[in-house]
Amino acid sequence: MGRAIRILGIDPGLRRTGWGIIEIEGSRLGFLACGSVSTDDKATLAERLVTLHDGLCQVVADHAPEEAAVEATFVNKDASATLKLGQARGIALLVPALARLPVSEYAPNLVKKTIVGAGHGDKAQIRMMLGVLLPKAYPKTHDAADALAIAICHAHHRQSKMLRVAAGQ
Amino acid sequence: MGRAIRILGIDPGLRRTGWGIIEIEGSRLGFLACGSVSTDDKATLAERLVTLHDGLCQVVADHAPEEAAVEATFVNKDASATLKLGQARGIALLVPALARLPVSEYAPNLVKKTIVGAGHGDKAQIRMMLGVLLPKAYPKTHDAADALAIAICHAHHRQSKMLRVAAGQ
Repeated sequence: MGRAIRILGIDPGLRRTGWGIIEIEGSRLGFLACGSVSTDDKATLAERLVTLHDGLCQVVADHAPEEAAVEATFVNKDASATLKLGQARGIALLVPALARLPVSEYAPNLVKKTIVGAGHGDKAQIRMMLGVLLPKAYPKTHDAADALAIAICHAHHRQSKMLRVAAGQ
Repeated sequence: MGRAIRILGIDPGLRRTGWGIIEIEGSRLGFLACGSVSTDDKATLAERLVTLHDGLCQVVADHAPEEAAVEATFVNKDASATLKLGQARGIALLVPALARLPVSEYAPNLVKKTIVGAGHGDKAQIRMMLGVLLPKAYPKTHDAADALAIAICHAHHRQSKMLRVAAGQ
């Protein structure tokens, strides 16, 4: 089934950005690592973005992923929360793109649907399915668990994407 | 009045990010350069953020600014526009912070008030006052003009900020 591909999933947030690394070989998934990068809410915004940048650069350097997937989150609470999330998302998209990885985006509902088979699965269901799909994973935070779910979502959808590209569609 | 300080102003936007470089020596302002970084709206979001990153890195490398100021814009139109702006703003704050410049943020109304003396000055008034304050400036776009206005705003407010820091306030 060809060689293993290493995928980085990112769940962006200004306070805490989750990340997860999995490997896919054919249809076999393997867990490699996960964690989160936290920022100091007493630091300036620019300093917090540097912390996210440096933390994600370290993840890319440590684990050498070949493709990246970022959650296309959408906060509708208020403009200020959306702006904050946007700033963190900018860094989450930038870091893998600067490292020349192809970066895909997935809507939260597609991530849930891919993992639990329904678009409205709750966090507990996602955690349970993660335990089935990646038995060796030990996400300590919801952000790290979500990042692994995003990586799995990409693992499932990347092949049909590649086939469409190969067929010129 | 001490040596000249070089200030980078940035007006962030995903489609086009304006930048301007001025020098301040005592109360004397001087124009150095301005321009904008445009992104291709047919490229992926990650690619567009890389274009903004690379363009702003080039500005920092070419002009060696010592302090940076970014407009704290606030779009209330819709969550999607705010998220886009947030992503561009993330890059605008990150690039000077990675270059170890102190980064200040100014609300649009404070920028207008500093330049035209009123918080509700329109773009034409700002352009006119820019012509008075920086007679050698030739901003070709509104984004570049806004970036120069942000740099001037920082030039006016940085000294009182420094005095407050020196006084331990």
